[in-house]
Amino acid sequence: MRATVMYGAGDVRVEHRPDPTIQRPTDAVVRVLRAAICGSDLWPYASMPATPEGRPMGHEFLGVVEDAGADVPGLKRGDLVVSPFVWADNTCDFCREGLHPSCRHGGRYGLDGVDGGQGEAVRVPQAQGTLLKLPVGPDSALLPSLLTLSDVFATGHHAAIKAGVGPRTAVTVVGDGAVGLCAVLAARRLGAERILLLGRHKDRTDLGREFGATEVVAERGAEGVGRVRNLTGGDGTHAVLECVGTRDALETAFGVVRIGGTVSRVGVPQYEEGPLGPDMFMRSVAVTGGPAPARAYLEELLPDVLDGRVEPGRVFDRLVTLDAVPDGYRAMADRAALKVLIQP
Amino acid sequence: MRATVMYGAGDVRVEHRPDPTIQRPTDAVVRVLRAAICGSDLWPYASMPATPEGRPMGHEFLGVVEDAGADVPGLKRGDLVVSPFVWADNTCDFCREGLHPSCRHGGRYGLDGVDGGQGEAVRVPQAQGTLLKLPVGPDSALLPSLLTLSDVFATGHHAAIKAGVGPRTAVTVVGDGAVGLCAVLAARRLGAERILLLGRHKDRTDLGREFGATEVVAERGAEGVGRVRNLTGGDGTHAVLECVGTRDALETAFGVVRIGGTVSRVGVPQYEEGPLGPDMFMRSVAVTGGPAPARAYLEELLPDVLDGRVEPGRVFDRLVTLDAVPDGYRAMADRAALKVLIQP
Repeated sequence: MRATVMYGAGDVRVEHRPDPTIQRPTDAVVRVLRAAICGSDLWPYASMPATPEGRPMGHEFLGVVEDAGADVPGLKRGDLVVSPFVWADNTCDFCREGLHPSCRHGGRYGLDGVDGGQGEAVRVPQAQGTLLKLPVGPDSALLPSLLTLSDVFATGHHAAIKAGVGPRTAVTVVGDGAVGLCAVLAARRLGAERILLLGRHKDRTDLGREFGATEVVAERGAEGVGRVRNLTGGDGTHAVLECVGTRDALETAFGVVRIGGTVSRVGVPQYEEGPLGPDMFMRSVAVTGGPAPARAYLEELLPDVLDGRVEPGRVFDRLVTLDAVPDGYRAMADRAALKVLIQP
Repeated sequence: MRATVMYGAGDVRVEHRPDPTIQRPTDAVVRVLRAAICGSDLWPYASMPATPEGRPMGHEFLGVVEDAGADVPGLKRGDLVVSPFVWADNTCDFCREGLHPSCRHGGRYGLDGVDGGQGEAVRVPQAQGTLLKLPVGPDSALLPSLLTLSDVFATGHHAAIKAGVGPRTAVTVVGDGAVGLCAVLAARRLGAERILLLGRHKDRTDLGREFGATEVVAERGAEGVGRVRNLTGGDGTHAVLECVGTRDALETAFGVVRIGGTVSRVGVPQYEEGPLGPDMFMRSVAVTGGPAPARAYLEELLPDVLDGRVEPGRVFDRLVTLDAVPDGYRAMADRAALKVLIQP
């Protein structure tokens, strides 16, 4: 098969790899229908040291089951399935607590001999616990939105859930990337009364408005913090969804959070230390978040995607074939594309 | 009247100050029956720059109402009352959310012309919202335990509440000071199944065991973290109550918290930055806490103190008169006393 491999910063190649086969009875092999490039793929794309082995890329995909091991009773050849961005048994104590990315028998795509999602096929370990069968056909127009359940929409939803977003909540979303926009959509879906979106790319914030942002703040840093405070009577908002992962974004998040509020982080931190000093303590600010247990949210989010109540797939603004995946990386890194959909 | 004033690090004096009087209709004047020295008083005692004005000290006290303003309908001369460590209106939006230390019309004792609690009497602003009437007489043997409702027991309770402690929770308490021991007691009261107390002062950890600690870990730093992990199958505990406020204690707390767990801080941070990097993110650890809204907890905690189900007053191991308050500070700073009770 052909699949995407990264050999170092800026060096993404599509090449022939061994066809995946069942190795354990808990495996399934999935033929990929759609995959995506994730914002988190851009961190190694910017900084990964060169390596001769390369690393298979991609952790967001949906496809058709080609083969299933003996211990995968729920799936059979031909089933259309979506995978969360990690594989997990969905039964251990961590999974039962909604901590699938820390599953005791789980792992990540592209590591330890497991394929990445940006290719023609994937061997999925722990397939029974990992994959969710989707009640649509391979030509469904819903595939892009269904694909976002594997990561980006589930991650936005996680940010909102961990921040306690519900009816009447005022929310600030830091970042107008695909996760930030999905966080807007998730907050809206959960009934948030007011959603302030911090972002300066008009095409993205325009989509954010369609997703439910009630106000857009284009200013950054202290100016952006001041603007949010002005818009909220000086107080900031109870919930702040930090969807970037930089230290600047974290400081903005702390700057706009209300006393007693919560900063919920879903951007992988590109920093080691954060402002946990007396100011944040005296203001009773909580920090939460982490990698989303996408699997835990699938059943809740799926019906709204199926009936079109939410259309998170609108974050995809470019479609590429497998050959053009390197161009897709470049377009996302250059911010020429918001999020790239791959049709192998 | 006579009251305690700090003029700089190590310089605590008891001197004559003007007798408090009603200045606003929302004030009450309380004659102090018992007061306490707080662990947080030791920070300025260690480092406060010398100042000619001095700062009235003390924020934990109970006493008898001597006079009440026209807008304090709930209290009258002779009522025995306890004060939380901050004064607050108990009606603003922050107070309604249990954020009394951030009350929109509240403030702190010893600042802005308000007396401190370590004296003969205190003018209490916002007395209607601040003070809680106690159904005991001035000779009650329960006064020490009732006094802990003003801060130290309420603070331990807050740590446990914010960490989500309940039946079947496993808890680690970092610190064997009075707050740490009260956190043990609070966790036990909330039904925690297992309480690991990190502390190396045997007399204190012995009291911790009586308060409900199921295990004591005397090792510190990496060794202490390793010991807690050994005791918990490698995982650490869901709830970690950080009751010290140093960077070392914070790092210990992060070290022993289970994946998906919560570090709840009630020690005032003596640091500006904390470890919020990828490790904590990937482990889905939450950080919460802050100053306790003691007022919000009074009604819940009071019955258990009144009927003797909890005896948080046992943290007091030294009783001093007002004259001997400077000795009390020294004893606490030298760790010769755990917590000092003042009987003016």
